[in-house]
Amino acid sequence: MKKRVILILLCCSFFMQNIWSQEALDKYNLMPWPKEIEDNTAKFMIDSNVTISIMGENHPRVRNAAINFLRRLANRTGVFIDNGFPLKEVSASIEINYNTISNLTVNDDESYTLVVKEDKVIIDAISDVGALRGMETLLQLVSYNEDNYFFQGVTIKDAPRFVWRGLMIDVARHFQPVDVLKRNLDAMASVKLNVFHWHLTDDQGFRVESKVYPRLQEIAADGLFYTQEQIRDVVAYASNLGIRVIPEFDVPGHASAILAAYPELGSKDDYDYKVERFAGVFDPTLDPSKKITYLFLETLFREIAPLFPDEYFHIGGDENEGKHWNENAEIQEFKKKHNLKTNHDLQTYFNIRLEKILKKLGKKLMGWDEILTPSIPTTAVIHSWRGEHEGLEQSTLIEAAQKGYQAVLSAGYYIDRMLSVEHHYLVDPIGDAVLSKEERKRILGAEATMWSELVTPLTIDSRIWPRTAAIAERYWSPKNTNDLIHMRKRLKVINYQLEELGINHIRNKDVILRNISKNEDTKPLRILSKICEPLKIYSRNKGGTEYKSFSPFTLFADACTADAEDAIEFNNVVSLFIKNDNKENLNAVNNFLTLWAENHIDFIKINNNPNTQLLEPLSKNLSNTSKLFLTILSNKKITLTEFNNLKALLTNLEEPFMDTELAILSSLKNLLTYCKANYLIQ
Amino acid sequence: MKKRVILILLCCSFFMQNIWSQEALDKYNLMPWPKEIEDNTAKFMIDSNVTISIMGENHPRVRNAAINFLRRLANRTGVFIDNGFPLKEVSASIEINYNTISNLTVNDDESYTLVVKEDKVIIDAISDVGALRGMETLLQLVSYNEDNYFFQGVTIKDAPRFVWRGLMIDVARHFQPVDVLKRNLDAMASVKLNVFHWHLTDDQGFRVESKVYPRLQEIAADGLFYTQEQIRDVVAYASNLGIRVIPEFDVPGHASAILAAYPELGSKDDYDYKVERFAGVFDPTLDPSKKITYLFLETLFREIAPLFPDEYFHIGGDENEGKHWNENAEIQEFKKKHNLKTNHDLQTYFNIRLEKILKKLGKKLMGWDEILTPSIPTTAVIHSWRGEHEGLEQSTLIEAAQKGYQAVLSAGYYIDRMLSVEHHYLVDPIGDAVLSKEERKRILGAEATMWSELVTPLTIDSRIWPRTAAIAERYWSPKNTNDLIHMRKRLKVINYQLEELGINHIRNKDVILRNISKNEDTKPLRILSKICEPLKIYSRNKGGTEYKSFSPFTLFADACTADAEDAIEFNNVVSLFIKNDNKENLNAVNNFLTLWAENHIDFIKINNNPNTQLLEPLSKNLSNTSKLFLTILSNKKITLTEFNNLKALLTNLEEPFMDTELAILSSLKNLLTYCKANYLIQ
Repeated sequence: MKKRVILILLCCSFFMQNIWSQEALDKYNLMPWPKEIEDNTAKFMIDSNVTISIMGENHPRVRNAAINFLRRLANRTGVFIDNGFPLKEVSASIEINYNTISNLTVNDDESYTLVVKEDKVIIDAISDVGALRGMETLLQLVSYNEDNYFFQGVTIKDAPRFVWRGLMIDVARHFQPVDVLKRNLDAMASVKLNVFHWHLTDDQGFRVESKVYPRLQEIAADGLFYTQEQIRDVVAYASNLGIRVIPEFDVPGHASAILAAYPELGSKDDYDYKVERFAGVFDPTLDPSKKITYLFLETLFREIAPLFPDEYFHIGGDENEGKHWNENAEIQEFKKKHNLKTNHDLQTYFNIRLEKILKKLGKKLMGWDEILTPSIPTTAVIHSWRGEHEGLEQSTLIEAAQKGYQAVLSAGYYIDRMLSVEHHYLVDPIGDAVLSKEERKRILGAEATMWSELVTPLTIDSRIWPRTAAIAERYWSPKNTNDLIHMRKRLKVINYQLEELGINHIRNKDVILRNISKNEDTKPLRILSKICEPLKIYSRNKGGTEYKSFSPFTLFADACTADAEDAIEFNNVVSLFIKNDNKENLNAVNNFLTLWAENHIDFIKINNNPNTQLLEPLSKNLSNTSKLFLTILSNKKITLTEFNNLKALLTNLEEPFMDTELAILSSLKNLLTYCKANYLIQ
Repeated sequence: MKKRVILILLCCSFFMQNIWSQEALDKYNLMPWPKEIEDNTAKFMIDSNVTISIMGENHPRVRNAAINFLRRLANRTGVFIDNGFPLKEVSASIEINYNTISNLTVNDDESYTLVVKEDKVIIDAISDVGALRGMETLLQLVSYNEDNYFFQGVTIKDAPRFVWRGLMIDVARHFQPVDVLKRNLDAMASVKLNVFHWHLTDDQGFRVESKVYPRLQEIAADGLFYTQEQIRDVVAYASNLGIRVIPEFDVPGHASAILAAYPELGSKDDYDYKVERFAGVFDPTLDPSKKITYLFLETLFREIAPLFPDEYFHIGGDENEGKHWNENAEIQEFKKKHNLKTNHDLQTYFNIRLEKILKKLGKKLMGWDEILTPSIPTTAVIHSWRGEHEGLEQSTLIEAAQKGYQAVLSAGYYIDRMLSVEHHYLVDPIGDAVLSKEERKRILGAEATMWSELVTPLTIDSRIWPRTAAIAERYWSPKNTNDLIHMRKRLKVINYQLEELGINHIRNKDVILRNISKNEDTKPLRILSKICEPLKIYSRNKGGTEYKSFSPFTLFADACTADAEDAIEFNNVVSLFIKNDNKENLNAVNNFLTLWAENHIDFIKINNNPNTQLLEPLSKNLSNTSKLFLTILSNKKITLTEFNNLKALLTNLEEPFMDTELAILSSLKNLLTYCKANYLIQ
């Protein structure tokens, strides 16, 4: 048996590629990539005789995971496994060993070792959650040849880099039913994420049933909220997957919905508080000078906190611009009386009172980084979200840790900004910061954030996945696991495997395109959608069309995703061609150009309604551009007229089409520059 | 404005076609087809100014329906509607009027009238549920041209033929989570079905939480059951859609799961009762001679019945073969003592006691047609399921109604048998039976039954839809609405519109094929899946592979459906060609043959794993068959060798491939017969 240690070396990715053979990198499609991996050539056959035994305490979490493991294995391979349930204390072909039951805290041990031999698989872990992580790795080792399915032989020793690896889902801007959360929890577990941050309230809705304050669900939710039993169900479901749940109740700002239900808590008298339908930052804010505000929050938290067993409790605290505070004489009076100079000081006063309320309930206060003010006690947990984009030179993460606060990073992981997977993958939470051991320990980890202004249950999966799988690797794997080509290759496999967990990111594209085409052939739309990306960094939601919560999200932009797949490939072949204009590279470019040149013929056939009409200029301009390039590349000649025509066409293509941008534009420009430089007839 | 009354005439479909112009039939894609329809050429524009007002009592049911109406309208058209919520008592462009709030009983009035004019839509109904039915019709009138979306002008007067129009879903053989039920309830409402029959218990699982008998969910459910709050949630969700919920607790047979939890209720001492994993008819049966059996059922029903507000309560009662009763001396003694000659008599005794228990709880006993014995009181409701296939000349429906029982038909509507939509569509519940007014009134209606031995949440939608939309038409529309071509044409539109309700029947095909192909190009598999149908009438689950509840349901057969779309088209073009072998018809045949001949080249590229390997003979034989036919049709000559070769190939194609059958086989045979008759070289 051939063995080779694949070392995780403390070196840059360039160096790594030189040490790891391509063969080793090619063999395993693991994500997150493990800490230590030693390959071997064994093949453990997956046939009807596969059995699982759970040694030690047969806790529901591992039993449930083992049953789901068997179901997923059967469904992925089509193998009829005789024994559909785990055996207890009996030696089986897959043995799972662990000693402790995790309480799901930041101190959990999630490490495991996994050995796959010819006739035996052994997973050893300290805790049950470690065993779960090992089972997910094993499922990623399923491979096949023409005759068999098998687990690839391997020895893995694995443990996470960060203890807090989260995904935040905003269910306020667009409500996400329990089934959406459950399938995303399944997907999170499959890539070893362990924190679900549940953004439950915002201007656009308060999504939790309160028996004490029923107007919250009656007035502030449009009928879209979770009952307390549903919350318990989601928390239990997450716990079964080894995922902690952190609820967020965003106060004192982002409070339009709360104030629609209980206007007496507001900072501005006689203001017409309403559930907000638009996206943005709004004025309605709780009044921190009133006793009833604290009475309300203490009573509410007392009712709701027990639904969430986790110690951490997020109170938001972001984006309060204090407009209504400034306009309220009593609040100004209150500030003076308490010697609070600024609105920040007033908010800190508010936060400190909340911190005490939460402490009584056994909770740690966590908030967005606006809460990081000099007087906030170090028991608070800082959630860094602002970065370069918000005018900061760097996030507050390192600063918070150095000042003694536990901290979690989200700056750089705002997946709703619709940036490429590379963008997020290359953000390292710590970077080059030099930290003491204690400071390093305070950096708990990071979270991807899925704000939901522009997503519905139909589209949310395609905004979270597959990018979040790569982000999960950033949080779990060693810092030097950062080779983009290797990541892309593995992500492609993980991407389609996510479908088995019910993630709709791939399948729902066609649903939207079928609706746009009115059940005509979706191919011409699919071809366009593979090179268009939704407008990035919130530019879709400003100027022109302003989206409301009930606007349609079944548009062309909703069928498109970040990392448009053909665009990646085309951009690649164009840069290869420009470096080396040999026949092979030319052909690769021509294949795409031909596809787009001819696509318009099919497009015209389905151009039968207002939505396809709006896409027609894109299809037509792209076709004309492609045809012209084909001629030029074939003739190896470009006239000045042709050059100017192409330039004009590319200018047209620069405009957004139905809230998308053409992701091949810069490559087309580069191609034009190349043609001008090499083929221009003066 | 052009107007023409489209009369629903009491005449056969042949006659109808001669009276209705093709234009009228083409214009509206309504399903179910309404009772009376008068067309006009008005177009009501769907733009941002569309508003809905609800006159009369603003009950949650209509308000909820109006909000969903606006969401679906926006999402289907992409129109940004300014006013996302219904107006109250204000004249809007769409006006909804009704007078009463339905209690959801068999006496409900679901009639409505709908008028669409150039600038106004008015729905008038007696009850709120009637208004809901009208809104669904209006959504089916959404049409478009290149510039606009609009509602087609029309005047409709509509009312259902039967008061009981149901879909049964079996959640015992394979558990179906709440979200599966909710999306199917939405789809049911969209085609005006109004009864959800919830088959909650069977040998393979007891799916309801009991606080009195907790072992039912602990032992008898594999963790897969509904909490009482979830049941309340589903019932409320259905009620909001104007759908009644009939629960079924199947006793005294089909009781393996109950007896696994409470073996003391069983008919055979020391029997090792277990939750059943296979499909079939099994021996475990409640003991009708024991007092504790009735105590158990009365206590259980007393706990559970209040979750279901409907008067009708289904106790199953089917397929009890009485084996364990025969083997139990005490039961035999009990029979003698009570003068019960047969096991049927004993079961009737049991049913009568249940009927009394249920009466105390305000419930009407309903059962499968085995309960129809001479001594069962006429307060019982007969659910006819056995037909020709079970050795009966005709169903018990008419007999039951004539004997004074209310009755519901399911014989002919077993959609899990995977027969064509035509098969079910042409089953008329009453047929030619001559009934008195009273007898006719006792025939409440009918139900499609989705037994779940071979379906999971991934595939169930593609087994229910779109066929159930056509069945819904059978239950709602006049008897003479039975033109198959017209039905097929409308079904195609309704089929893809079901996607907007979250029905996964189309999108999940590719999910399964991606898994089979391991994310390679699914096109060659899709081409095969469009001419293959899953084995019918339970032949998939007998002999050879025996499916268990945890077997894989991600196989090629699971990607295939009844009414394979290319098969329908090919069968059509072949019969046209045989009737008239002109060039056009020949080309149509050749196009398909060329597709299949060439498909194998693509298939080979993705043939990389055991599942594709199993399909290889199908792809190859089909390719060879197609090639040979192409040659023969081109040469207009067939040699005896060619004839024999083709015959052998067709014999090979007769074998099931991965639990599917080739739905074009008889057309290929007909084509061969044609070739022999016309082209044979002696």
